[in-house]
Amino acid sequence: MRIAIIGATGHAGTALVHEAERRGHEVTGFVRHPERATVLGDNTNARIVKADAFTLMAPVLTRFDVIIDAFSTSPDHAYLHVDLATHLVAQLRNITTTRVAFILGAGSLQHPDGGTVLNRMEQNPELAGIINTPRQQAAELDFLRHVDNVDWVGISPAMTFEPGPATKYVAGKDTLLVDTQGRSHLTTGNLALALMDEIEHPQHQQARFTARDDA
Amino acid sequence: MRIAIIGATGHAGTALVHEAERRGHEVTGFVRHPERATVLGDNTNARIVKADAFTLMAPVLTRFDVIIDAFSTSPDHAYLHVDLATHLVAQLRNITTTRVAFILGAGSLQHPDGGTVLNRMEQNPELAGIINTPRQQAAELDFLRHVDNVDWVGISPAMTFEPGPATKYVAGKDTLLVDTQGRSHLTTGNLALALMDEIEHPQHQQARFTARDDA
Repeated sequence: MRIAIIGATGHAGTALVHEAERRGHEVTGFVRHPERATVLGDNTNARIVKADAFTLMAPVLTRFDVIIDAFSTSPDHAYLHVDLATHLVAQLRNITTTRVAFILGAGSLQHPDGGTVLNRMEQNPELAGIINTPRQQAAELDFLRHVDNVDWVGISPAMTFEPGPATKYVAGKDTLLVDTQGRSHLTTGNLALALMDEIEHPQHQQARFTARDDA
Repeated sequence: MRIAIIGATGHAGTALVHEAERRGHEVTGFVRHPERATVLGDNTNARIVKADAFTLMAPVLTRFDVIIDAFSTSPDHAYLHVDLATHLVAQLRNITTTRVAFILGAGSLQHPDGGTVLNRMEQNPELAGIINTPRQQAAELDFLRHVDNVDWVGISPAMTFEPGPATKYVAGKDTLLVDTQGRSHLTTGNLALALMDEIEHPQHQQARFTARDDA
Protein backbone atom coordinates (compact mmCIF):
# COMPACT_ATOMS: atom_id res chain seq x y z
CA MET A 1 0.00 0.00 0.00
CA ARG A 2 0.97 3.62 -0.39
CA ILE A 3 1.23 4.91 3.15
CA ALA A 4 1.86 8.52 4.18
CA ILE A 5 3.08 9.25 7.68
CA ILE A 6 2.70 12.77 9.05
CA GLY A 7 5.39 13.28 11.70
CA ALA A 8 7.60 10.50 10.33
CA THR A 9 10.63 11.57 12.37
CA GLY A 10 8.84 11.50 15.73
CA HIS A 11 8.92 8.57 18.14
CA ALA A 12 5.77 6.93 16.81
CA GLY A 13 6.56 8.00 13.25
CA THR A 14 9.99 6.37 13.03
CA ALA A 15 8.64 3.06 14.38
CA LEU A 16 5.81 3.24 11.85
CA VAL A 17 8.15 3.97 8.94
CA HIS A 18 10.27 0.93 9.80
CA GLU A 19 7.35 -1.44 10.36
CA ALA A 20 5.56 -0.31 7.19
CA GLU A 21 8.72 -0.75 5.12
CA ARG A 22 9.46 -4.14 6.67
CA ARG A 23 6.05 -5.20 5.36
CA GLY A 24 6.86 -3.96 1.86
CA HIS A 25 4.69 -0.85 1.77
CA GLU A 26 5.63 2.30 -0.15
CA VAL A 27 6.20 4.90 2.55
CA THR A 28 6.16 8.69 2.29
CA GLY A 29 7.03 10.72 5.37
CA PHE A 30 5.73 14.28 5.67
CA VAL A 31 7.94 16.18 8.09
CA ARG A 32 8.50 19.79 9.09
CA HIS A 33 12.25 19.27 9.55
CA PRO A 34 13.69 16.95 6.87
CA GLU A 35 17.17 17.38 8.38
CA ARG A 36 15.94 15.24 11.28
CA ALA A 37 15.27 12.31 8.92
CA THR A 38 18.69 10.94 9.94
CA VAL A 39 16.85 9.42 12.92
CA LEU A 40 15.41 6.93 10.44
CA GLY A 41 18.91 5.52 9.83
CA ASP A 42 20.29 4.35 6.49
CA ASN A 43 18.08 1.30 6.25
CA THR A 44 15.08 3.07 4.73
CA ASN A 45 13.68 3.78 1.29
CA ALA A 46 10.98 6.09 2.61
CA ARG A 47 10.48 9.23 0.60
CA ILE A 48 10.82 12.17 2.99
CA VAL A 49 8.89 15.30 1.99
CA LYS A 50 9.13 18.62 3.78
CA ALA A 51 5.59 19.84 4.35
CA ASP A 52 3.42 21.71 6.79
CA ALA A 53 0.72 19.08 7.32
CA PHE A 54 -1.94 21.80 7.43
CA THR A 55 -1.22 22.57 3.78
CA LEU A 56 -1.77 18.99 2.55
CA MET A 57 -4.96 19.10 0.53
CA ALA A 58 -7.19 16.40 -0.97
CA PRO A 59 -5.33 16.09 -4.31
CA VAL A 60 -2.14 15.08 -2.47
CA LEU A 61 -3.75 13.15 0.39
CA THR A 62 -5.85 10.98 -1.93
CA ARG A 63 -2.71 9.68 -3.67
CA PHE A 64 -2.28 7.46 -0.61
CA ASP A 65 -4.18 4.41 0.54
CA VAL A 66 -3.57 5.37 4.15
CA ILE A 67 -2.56 8.58 5.91
CA ILE A 68 -1.18 8.12 9.42
CA ASP A 69 -1.37 11.22 11.60
CA ALA A 70 1.60 10.79 13.95
CA PHE A 71 1.93 14.54 14.46
CA SER A 72 3.25 15.65 17.82
CA THR A 73 3.78 19.03 19.41
CA SER A 74 4.28 20.71 22.78
CA PRO A 75 1.47 20.90 25.38
CA ASP A 76 1.20 24.67 24.69
CA HIS A 77 0.26 23.94 21.10
CA ALA A 78 -1.74 20.79 21.78
CA TYR A 79 -4.83 22.29 20.10
CA LEU A 80 -2.98 21.59 16.85
CA HIS A 81 -3.80 17.90 17.35
CA VAL A 82 -7.46 18.87 16.99
CA ASP A 83 -6.83 21.29 14.15
CA LEU A 84 -4.85 18.75 12.12
CA ALA A 85 -7.53 16.10 12.62
CA THR A 86 -10.28 18.52 11.53
CA HIS A 87 -8.18 19.57 8.53
CA LEU A 88 -7.58 15.98 7.38
CA VAL A 89 -11.23 15.08 7.88
CA ALA A 90 -12.41 18.12 5.93
CA GLN A 91 -10.10 17.14 3.05
CA LEU A 92 -11.20 13.51 3.03
CA ARG A 93 -15.01 13.89 3.32
CA ASN A 94 -16.77 11.26 1.20
CA ILE A 95 -13.43 9.81 0.00
CA THR A 96 -13.67 6.03 0.26
CA THR A 97 -10.25 5.16 -1.13
CA THR A 98 -8.01 6.84 1.46
CA ARG A 99 -8.10 5.78 5.09
CA VAL A 100 -6.78 8.01 7.84
CA ALA A 101 -5.35 6.71 11.12
CA PHE A 102 -4.90 8.93 14.17
CA ILE A 103 -2.51 8.28 17.03
CA LEU A 104 -4.42 9.50 20.04
CA GLY A 105 -3.35 9.66 23.65
CA ALA A 106 -4.44 7.36 26.46
CA GLY A 107 -6.45 10.15 28.12
CA SER A 108 -9.74 9.33 26.40
CA LEU A 109 -9.62 5.66 27.48
CA GLN A 110 -11.85 4.46 30.29
CA HIS A 111 -9.90 3.81 33.46
CA PRO A 112 -10.47 0.28 34.84
CA ASP A 113 -11.31 1.88 38.21
CA GLY A 114 -13.91 4.27 36.70
CA GLY A 115 -13.93 7.59 34.85
CA THR A 116 -11.51 8.32 32.07
CA VAL A 117 -7.74 8.34 32.25
CA LEU A 118 -7.96 12.09 31.57
CA ASN A 119 -10.28 12.64 34.57
CA ARG A 120 -7.64 11.03 36.79
CA MET A 121 -4.77 12.95 35.22
CA GLU A 122 -6.65 16.22 35.79
CA GLN A 123 -6.73 15.49 39.52
CA ASN A 124 -2.94 15.25 39.65
CA PRO A 125 -1.41 18.74 40.01
CA GLU A 126 1.98 17.39 38.95
CA LEU A 127 0.57 16.90 35.46
CA ALA A 128 -0.66 20.51 35.06
CA GLY A 129 2.20 21.28 32.67
CA ILE A 130 1.30 18.54 30.21
CA ILE A 131 -2.45 18.11 30.75
CA ASN A 132 -3.26 20.10 27.63
CA THR A 133 -2.00 17.27 25.44
CA PRO A 134 -4.29 14.49 26.73
CA ARG A 135 -7.12 17.01 26.96
CA GLN A 136 -6.82 18.03 23.31
CA GLN A 137 -6.30 14.47 22.16
CA ALA A 138 -9.53 13.54 23.96
CA ALA A 139 -11.24 16.45 22.17
CA GLU A 140 -9.80 15.08 18.92
CA LEU A 141 -11.49 11.72 19.51
CA ASP A 142 -14.78 13.44 20.50
CA PHE A 143 -14.62 15.25 17.18
CA LEU A 144 -13.83 12.07 15.22
CA ARG A 145 -16.74 10.20 16.79
CA HIS A 146 -19.13 12.50 14.94
CA VAL A 147 -17.46 11.82 11.58
CA ASP A 148 -19.42 9.25 9.58
CA ASN A 149 -18.27 9.89 6.01
CA VAL A 150 -14.49 9.46 6.36
CA ASP A 151 -12.73 6.11 6.73
CA TRP A 152 -10.95 6.84 10.00
CA VAL A 153 -9.45 4.79 12.81
CA GLY A 154 -7.74 5.86 16.03
CA ILE A 155 -5.25 4.10 18.28
CA SER A 156 -4.64 5.02 21.90
CA PRO A 157 -1.49 3.67 23.50
CA ALA A 158 -1.26 2.39 27.07
CA MET A 159 -0.57 4.75 30.00
CA THR A 160 3.19 4.76 29.38
CA PHE A 161 4.13 5.06 25.71
CA GLU A 162 7.81 5.22 24.91
CA PRO A 163 10.43 4.14 22.40
CA GLY A 164 11.06 0.42 22.40
CA PRO A 165 11.14 -2.61 20.13
CA ALA A 166 8.32 -4.43 18.39
CA THR A 167 7.69 -7.63 20.35
CA LYS A 168 4.05 -8.63 20.85
CA TYR A 169 0.94 -6.72 21.80
CA VAL A 170 -2.56 -7.20 23.14
CA ALA A 171 -5.38 -5.06 21.69
CA GLY A 172 -8.53 -3.70 23.31
CA LYS A 173 -11.25 -1.19 22.60
CA ASP A 174 -12.00 1.75 24.87
CA THR A 175 -10.58 0.70 28.25
CA LEU A 176 -6.99 1.24 29.35
CA LEU A 177 -5.14 -2.06 29.17
CA VAL A 178 -3.10 -3.15 32.20
CA ASP A 179 -1.07 -6.36 32.45
CA THR A 180 -1.14 -8.85 35.33
CA GLN A 181 1.70 -6.96 37.04
CA GLY A 182 -0.35 -3.75 36.92
CA ARG A 183 1.78 -2.24 34.16
CA SER A 184 0.12 -0.28 31.34
CA HIS A 185 2.91 0.06 28.81
CA LEU A 186 3.25 0.22 25.03
CA THR A 187 6.45 0.56 23.06
CA THR A 188 6.54 2.54 19.82
CA GLY A 189 7.47 -0.73 18.10
CA ASN A 190 4.35 -2.44 19.37
CA LEU A 191 2.18 0.55 18.46
CA ALA A 192 3.55 0.21 14.94
CA LEU A 193 2.78 -3.54 14.93
CA ALA A 194 -0.77 -2.95 16.14
CA LEU A 195 -1.51 -0.12 13.73
CA MET A 196 0.03 -1.85 10.72
CA ASP A 197 -2.00 -4.97 11.54
CA GLU A 198 -5.12 -2.79 11.62
CA ILE A 199 -4.16 -1.16 8.32
CA GLU A 200 -3.58 -4.50 6.59
CA HIS A 201 -6.61 -6.20 8.18
CA PRO A 202 -9.15 -3.56 9.26
CA GLN A 203 -11.06 -4.51 12.40
CA HIS A 204 -12.13 -1.04 13.53
CA GLN A 205 -14.32 1.15 11.33
CA GLN A 206 -14.70 4.76 12.47
CA ALA A 207 -13.61 3.72 15.93
CA ARG A 208 -10.69 3.89 18.33
CA PHE A 209 -8.82 0.89 19.69
CA THR A 210 -5.96 0.49 22.13
CA ALA A 211 -2.96 -1.78 22.69
CA ARG A 212 -0.43 -2.71 25.36
CA ASP A 213 2.76 -4.73 25.29
CA ASP A 214 2.26 -8.45 25.73
CA ALA A 215 5.07 -9.28 28.16
CA MET B 1 -17.55 47.48 14.70
CA ARG B 2 -16.29 45.76 11.59
CA ILE B 3 -18.55 42.75 11.19
CA ALA B 4 -18.17 40.01 8.59
CA ILE B 5 -21.13 37.78 7.81
CA ILE B 6 -20.52 34.46 6.09
CA GLY B 7 -23.68 33.52 4.21
CA ALA B 8 -24.96 37.10 4.09
CA THR B 9 -27.62 36.32 1.50
CA GLY B 10 -29.22 33.49 3.46
CA HIS B 11 -32.28 33.88 5.69
CA ALA B 12 -30.31 34.54 8.88
CA GLY B 13 -27.61 36.43 6.99
CA THR B 14 -29.89 39.03 5.42
CA ALA B 15 -31.57 39.77 8.77
CA LEU B 16 -28.13 40.14 10.35
CA VAL B 17 -26.88 42.47 7.61
CA HIS B 18 -29.87 44.77 8.11
CA GLU B 19 -29.74 44.75 11.90
CA ALA B 20 -25.96 45.32 11.98
CA GLU B 21 -26.25 48.22 9.52
CA ARG B 22 -29.19 49.72 11.42
CA ARG B 23 -26.86 49.87 14.42
CA GLY B 24 -24.16 51.62 12.41
CA HIS B 25 -21.68 48.80 12.03
CA GLU B 26 -19.46 48.34 9.00
CA VAL B 27 -20.70 45.15 7.37
CA THR B 28 -18.94 42.84 4.92
CA GLY B 29 -20.86 39.91 3.52
CA PHE B 30 -18.95 36.86 2.27
CA VAL B 31 -21.13 34.97 -0.18
CA ARG B 32 -20.71 32.21 -2.74
CA HIS B 33 -23.21 33.77 -5.13
CA PRO B 34 -22.91 37.58 -5.19
CA GLU B 35 -25.68 37.73 -7.81
CA ARG B 36 -28.08 36.77 -5.01
CA ALA B 37 -27.17 39.93 -3.07
CA THR B 38 -30.27 41.54 -4.58
CA VAL B 39 -32.18 39.88 -1.70
CA LEU B 40 -30.59 42.53 0.53
CA GLY B 41 -32.53 45.24 -1.31
CA ASP B 42 -31.25 48.69 -2.16
CA ASN B 43 -31.17 49.96 1.40
CA THR B 44 -27.72 48.56 2.25
CA ASN B 45 -24.13 49.73 2.25
CA ALA B 46 -22.76 46.29 3.04
CA ARG B 47 -19.71 45.30 1.06
CA ILE B 48 -20.49 42.00 -0.67
CA VAL B 49 -17.44 39.84 -1.39
CA LYS B 50 -17.53 36.62 -3.38
CA ALA B 51 -15.60 34.03 -1.42
CA ASP B 52 -15.54 30.37 -0.55
CA ALA B 53 -15.59 30.65 3.25
CA PHE B 54 -13.17 27.74 3.51
CA THR B 55 -10.50 29.85 1.85
CA LEU B 56 -10.77 32.75 4.33
CA MET B 57 -7.53 32.69 6.29
CA ALA B 58 -6.36 34.50 9.43
CA PRO B 59 -4.96 37.60 7.65
CA VAL B 60 -8.42 38.36 6.23
CA LEU B 61 -10.50 37.15 9.17
CA THR B 62 -8.57 39.19 11.72
CA ARG B 63 -9.43 42.42 9.91
CA PHE B 64 -12.85 42.09 11.53
CA ASP B 65 -13.97 42.55 15.11
CA VAL B 66 -16.59 39.86 14.67
CA ILE B 67 -17.12 37.06 12.16
CA ILE B 68 -20.66 35.67 12.04
CA ASP B 69 -20.92 32.19 10.58
CA ALA B 70 -24.41 32.16 9.03
CA PHE B 71 -23.43 29.52 6.48
CA SER B 72 -26.17 27.19 5.38
CA THR B 73 -26.25 24.18 3.10
CA SER B 74 -28.37 21.15 2.24
CA PRO B 75 -28.76 18.21 4.67
CA ASP B 76 -26.57 16.09 2.34
CA HIS B 77 -23.69 18.48 2.89
CA ALA B 78 -24.43 19.29 6.52
CA TYR B 79 -20.94 18.13 7.57
CA LEU B 80 -19.77 21.41 6.07
CA HIS B 81 -21.22 23.16 9.13
CA VAL B 82 -18.64 21.28 11.18
CA ASP B 83 -15.86 21.78 8.67
CA LEU B 84 -16.40 25.53 8.47
CA ALA B 85 -16.45 25.84 12.26
CA THR B 86 -13.22 23.85 12.56
CA HIS B 87 -11.65 25.94 9.81
CA LEU B 88 -12.56 29.25 11.44
CA VAL B 89 -11.39 28.04 14.85
CA ALA B 90 -8.06 26.83 13.44
CA GLN B 91 -7.53 30.25 11.83
CA LEU B 92 -8.42 32.18 14.99
CA ARG B 93 -6.49 30.21 17.64
CA ASN B 94 -5.05 32.55 20.27
CA ILE B 95 -6.51 35.62 18.49
CA THR B 96 -8.12 37.82 21.14
CA THR B 97 -9.23 40.67 18.87
CA THR B 98 -11.64 38.83 16.59
CA ARG B 99 -14.74 37.16 17.98
CA VAL B 100 -16.57 34.46 16.03
CA ALA B 101 -20.30 33.80 16.36
CA PHE B 102 -21.92 30.58 15.13
CA ILE B 103 -25.57 30.14 14.25
CA LEU B 104 -26.33 26.64 15.44
CA GLY B 105 -29.52 24.66 15.16
CA ALA B 106 -31.99 23.92 17.93
CA GLY B 107 -31.04 20.20 17.96
CA SER B 108 -28.37 20.52 20.65
CA LEU B 109 -30.74 22.25 23.09
CA GLN B 110 -32.16 20.33 26.01
CA HIS B 111 -35.82 19.52 25.52
CA PRO B 112 -37.99 20.70 28.45
CA ASP B 113 -39.40 17.15 28.65
CA GLY B 114 -35.93 15.52 28.81
CA GLY B 115 -33.22 14.53 26.36
CA THR B 116 -32.09 16.82 23.60
CA VAL B 117 -34.20 18.21 20.81
CA LEU B 118 -32.03 16.12 18.46
CA ASN B 119 -32.84 12.90 20.36
CA ARG B 120 -36.52 13.59 19.81
CA MET B 121 -36.08 14.51 16.16
CA GLU B 122 -34.17 11.25 15.57
CA GLN B 123 -37.21 9.31 16.75
CA ASN B 124 -39.40 10.91 14.08
CA PRO B 125 -39.02 9.03 10.77
CA GLU B 126 -40.57 11.95 8.91
CA LEU B 127 -37.44 13.96 9.66
CA ALA B 128 -35.02 11.38 8.19
CA GLY B 129 -34.41 13.56 5.14
CA ILE B 130 -33.23 16.57 7.13
CA ILE B 131 -31.85 14.97 10.33
CA ASN B 132 -28.28 15.37 9.11
CA THR B 133 -28.46 19.11 9.60
CA PRO B 134 -29.36 19.16 13.33
CA ARG B 135 -27.01 16.23 13.86
CA GLN B 136 -24.03 18.02 12.34
CA GLN B 137 -24.90 21.30 14.04
CA ALA B 138 -24.93 19.43 17.36
CA ALA B 139 -21.52 18.00 16.47
CA GLU B 140 -20.39 21.55 15.70
CA LEU B 141 -21.32 22.65 19.23
CA ASP B 142 -19.64 19.59 20.77
CA PHE B 143 -16.50 20.59 18.91
CA LEU B 144 -16.75 24.23 20.00
CA ARG B 145 -17.15 23.26 23.64
CA HIS B 146 -13.58 21.97 23.64
CA VAL B 147 -12.23 25.25 22.24
CA ASP B 148 -10.76 27.41 24.99
CA ASN B 149 -8.44 29.75 23.10
CA VAL B 150 -10.83 31.33 20.62
CA ASP B 151 -13.41 34.01 21.51
CA TRP B 152 -16.50 32.15 20.27
CA VAL B 153 -20.21 32.28 20.95
CA GLY B 154 -23.08 30.25 19.56
CA ILE B 155 -26.78 30.95 19.20
CA SER B 156 -29.44 28.28 18.80
CA PRO B 157 -32.85 29.42 17.58
CA ALA B 158 -36.14 28.04 18.85
CA MET B 159 -37.72 24.92 17.30
CA THR B 160 -39.25 26.84 14.39
CA PHE B 161 -36.88 29.37 12.86
CA GLU B 162 -38.13 31.27 9.84
CA PRO B 163 -38.07 34.65 8.13
CA GLY B 164 -39.91 37.31 10.04
CA PRO B 165 -39.51 40.77 11.53
CA ALA B 166 -37.48 41.93 14.51
CA THR B 167 -39.91 42.52 17.36
CA LYS B 168 -38.80 41.36 20.83
CA TYR B 169 -37.10 38.24 22.08
CA VAL B 170 -36.46 36.27 25.27
CA ALA B 171 -33.03 34.66 25.76
CA GLY B 172 -32.03 31.47 27.51
CA LYS B 173 -29.04 29.18 27.82
CA ASP B 174 -29.15 25.50 26.90
CA THR B 175 -32.85 24.60 27.11
CA LEU B 176 -35.34 25.00 24.26
CA LEU B 177 -37.53 28.02 24.96
CA VAL B 178 -41.29 27.60 24.65
CA ASP B 179 -43.86 30.35 25.24
CA THR B 180 -46.99 30.09 27.39
CA GLN B 181 -48.96 28.94 24.34
CA GLY B 182 -46.49 26.08 23.81
CA ARG B 183 -44.92 27.74 20.76
CA SER B 184 -41.16 27.61 20.25
CA HIS B 185 -40.59 30.14 17.50
CA LEU B 186 -37.89 32.60 16.48
CA THR B 187 -37.93 34.94 13.52
CA THR B 188 -34.76 35.76 11.63
CA GLY B 189 -35.30 39.37 12.72
CA ASN B 190 -35.30 38.40 16.39
CA LEU B 191 -32.26 36.17 15.94
CA ALA B 192 -30.49 39.20 14.51
CA LEU B 193 -31.61 41.33 17.48
CA ALA B 194 -30.43 38.73 19.99
CA LEU B 195 -27.08 38.13 18.29
CA MET B 196 -26.33 41.82 17.73
CA ASP B 197 -27.16 42.51 21.40
CA GLU B 198 -24.68 39.76 22.34
CA ILE B 199 -22.06 41.20 20.00
CA GLU B 200 -22.44 44.73 21.42
CA HIS B 201 -22.74 43.57 25.04
CA PRO B 202 -21.14 40.13 25.43
CA GLN B 203 -22.87 37.95 28.03
CA HIS B 204 -21.74 34.53 26.81
CA GLN B 205 -18.06 33.63 26.68
CA GLN B 206 -17.24 30.41 24.84
CA ALA B 207 -20.82 29.31 25.29
CA ARG B 208 -24.06 28.85 23.42
CA PHE B 209 -27.29 30.68 24.18
CA THR B 210 -30.78 30.54 22.71
CA ALA B 211 -33.69 32.88 22.02
CA ARG B 212 -37.39 32.79 21.17
CA ASP B 213 -39.83 35.46 20.05
CA ASP B 214 -41.42 37.38 22.89
CA ALA B 215 -45.04 37.53 21.75
